[in-house]
Amino acid sequence: MDRIFSDRISDVPRSFIREILKVALEPSMISFAGGLPNRDFFPQAGLIAATAKVFDRKGRDIFQYSNSEGDLELRETIAARYRKRGLDIQADRILITSGSQQGLDLLGKTLLNEGDGMVIEEPGYLGAIQAFSIFRPRFFSVSVSPDGMAVDGFAEAMRQTPKLVYTVPNFQNPSGITYSNSNRKAIADVLKKSNAFLIEDDPYGELRFRGEAQTSFYELAPDNTILLGSFSKIVVPGFRIGWLVAPAHIQEKLVIAKQATDLHTCQFTQNIILQYLQDNDLDDHIATIINAYRSQCQAMLDAIDKHFPDDVTCTRPEGGMFLWAELKNGTSALDLFDEAVKQGVVFVPGDPFYLDRTGSNSMRLSFSTLDESTITEGIEKLAQAINQLHNR
Amino acid sequence: MDRIFSDRISDVPRSFIREILKVALEPSMISFAGGLPNRDFFPQAGLIAATAKVFDRKGRDIFQYSNSEGDLELRETIAARYRKRGLDIQADRILITSGSQQGLDLLGKTLLNEGDGMVIEEPGYLGAIQAFSIFRPRFFSVSVSPDGMAVDGFAEAMRQTPKLVYTVPNFQNPSGITYSNSNRKAIADVLKKSNAFLIEDDPYGELRFRGEAQTSFYELAPDNTILLGSFSKIVVPGFRIGWLVAPAHIQEKLVIAKQATDLHTCQFTQNIILQYLQDNDLDDHIATIINAYRSQCQAMLDAIDKHFPDDVTCTRPEGGMFLWAELKNGTSALDLFDEAVKQGVVFVPGDPFYLDRTGSNSMRLSFSTLDESTITEGIEKLAQAINQLHNR
Repeated sequence: MDRIFSDRISDVPRSFIREILKVALEPSMISFAGGLPNRDFFPQAGLIAATAKVFDRKGRDIFQYSNSEGDLELRETIAARYRKRGLDIQADRILITSGSQQGLDLLGKTLLNEGDGMVIEEPGYLGAIQAFSIFRPRFFSVSVSPDGMAVDGFAEAMRQTPKLVYTVPNFQNPSGITYSNSNRKAIADVLKKSNAFLIEDDPYGELRFRGEAQTSFYELAPDNTILLGSFSKIVVPGFRIGWLVAPAHIQEKLVIAKQATDLHTCQFTQNIILQYLQDNDLDDHIATIINAYRSQCQAMLDAIDKHFPDDVTCTRPEGGMFLWAELKNGTSALDLFDEAVKQGVVFVPGDPFYLDRTGSNSMRLSFSTLDESTITEGIEKLAQAINQLHNR
Repeated sequence: MDRIFSDRISDVPRSFIREILKVALEPSMISFAGGLPNRDFFPQAGLIAATAKVFDRKGRDIFQYSNSEGDLELRETIAARYRKRGLDIQADRILITSGSQQGLDLLGKTLLNEGDGMVIEEPGYLGAIQAFSIFRPRFFSVSVSPDGMAVDGFAEAMRQTPKLVYTVPNFQNPSGITYSNSNRKAIADVLKKSNAFLIEDDPYGELRFRGEAQTSFYELAPDNTILLGSFSKIVVPGFRIGWLVAPAHIQEKLVIAKQATDLHTCQFTQNIILQYLQDNDLDDHIATIINAYRSQCQAMLDAIDKHFPDDVTCTRPEGGMFLWAELKNGTSALDLFDEAVKQGVVFVPGDPFYLDRTGSNSMRLSFSTLDESTITEGIEKLAQAINQLHNR
């Protein structure tokens, strides 16, 4: 029966995370497994008010088909926010997408032939591996460390003349690490000598709760960078509004791909977000999220320092929603997962963040959705699970 | 520079319709070119009320990430509507898509390898040709007539063992024709002897204003049929809510493709539509649309009969939004288009509805968005343009 399916669909790895989330749904379970933003910070009142205004101002037109590029005023607002940060970006370079996950799909469609090279981070974002697998590239994994992408490994991979490089340089999913300025410059220097495009996927960049913002790849290598952004982590994910910024000649083809894919992104939710941005100070709202995530991350780090065995290491994120812990060599995070479920706590074992690895000793811990005391309690339980496993 | 693009994106035909719509935007222009449903029948009050209820009932959860399959209650509601029509469809067979255009993308992703055969209608829906071109099938065009798809041509094409067959059996875009029951049976008989899937794209099926509903391919050949539906033409298109119904083993892969493509469809607009369906009688609403489209179509046919030269033929749709006219042999609809713009009326020349044809003598005329007197006036102007062209 399998002959009926395309080869590409067989290449897409299943999301282990989906399976995990089923376990996480039990109410008593403490879950560090989710990749969700904290619902307490969804600006409910602001969005409800914005919706009423949109109905009032746009009338029936809000229900009609719309253009493939996205709402021009929203694109102008996004461009203006970039310019405030010093990035020279105009609205006509921005394409609104149905979440930034769709940006990955459109880039794969537009740029990847089967067998084209593609550099990805290791560990890296599973959703990106899934999106690009559809287009059957040859993946070259380059490891990331707390400082960024391994420069030697990157230079080596670039000798294979890949077409795309996928990165999450700020508070990476899954590891929480951020590429340093010096790492970015080294990567950009290699990149600029190539014809490859680096995808700078930046859903978390504005969620920095410590340290200083690092230079965007878009600034370091504008002709070689495609920038992806999203309202999912700073306003709400459910409206499915993301965007990408690409050079003009790429943009033109991306619009064709967008049209062929789903005609256009919902203009109703685009307009609600736009109205919300016009009536509220987004930076104030982001500050609220940041304050909470800072405390939650700190609570997790404090509990880890206190309760985890010394041979467990972890990253120390300066923003975002995740940190990454490594058990001592030879300990499988999958084994720990089974033990942790018994203790009433779950996380995502590292395996799905690698192209091809089983029984890795790493795990992703999300601190975005739980309050500090629950985080502390969960880390204690996880520490017990680690000890149980070691003592078996 | 072209080497940077994938081969597939170069295969996607540009939408001539987009260019045309720019001309159509001039306020004095009478446009038969659009493919839009009539905004006067968007249930504005009902959707505003439904939105308020959704905010009230769902709270912050409506803003969060959601599942890839779509809202279960909405899927159950869609399934129940099918069962009322006698189609045995359960919710777990339904996948919510971001408009039914996305259904085409997901089917291409899941089922088509490069070079796989795909039967399409000629003339056929340009958006489908665009969506599937991305996956680089070999297209086999089979002509449609007022009775349906040419059975001989279809049988001939099926000898090439295509993987997919794309059809719009009810009030086809662009031609307005409907496959007769006997045509459907003949097509289904050939189909059932193959391993191919027929895509029954049915966005207009409920907009029947004359005659009797014909049997669904889903009923005639359930194992070989994938059914696509949409709220775009019967509620609103701007919310981007469509769905597909597929055999269980296909459905499973489609969900993986959906997840890789955009994670999930906006659950906010899904829930507004659901609430609207719970609080209103959709059939009553559809009856209102049908009554208007019936009169508008009749006005167009009456004006055509009165004003067009006898050597122009046209289809006589029993529903939907379009009819199809053919000028006498050798007359190019592109030439007529230039003349028609001068008279203040536009339409879509037939060329983009064929895989590879220029200067065809056919045109698509939409009657969905204009009132009867404007339709009559527009057809008079178009008749003048035809006469101008013939007398040159």
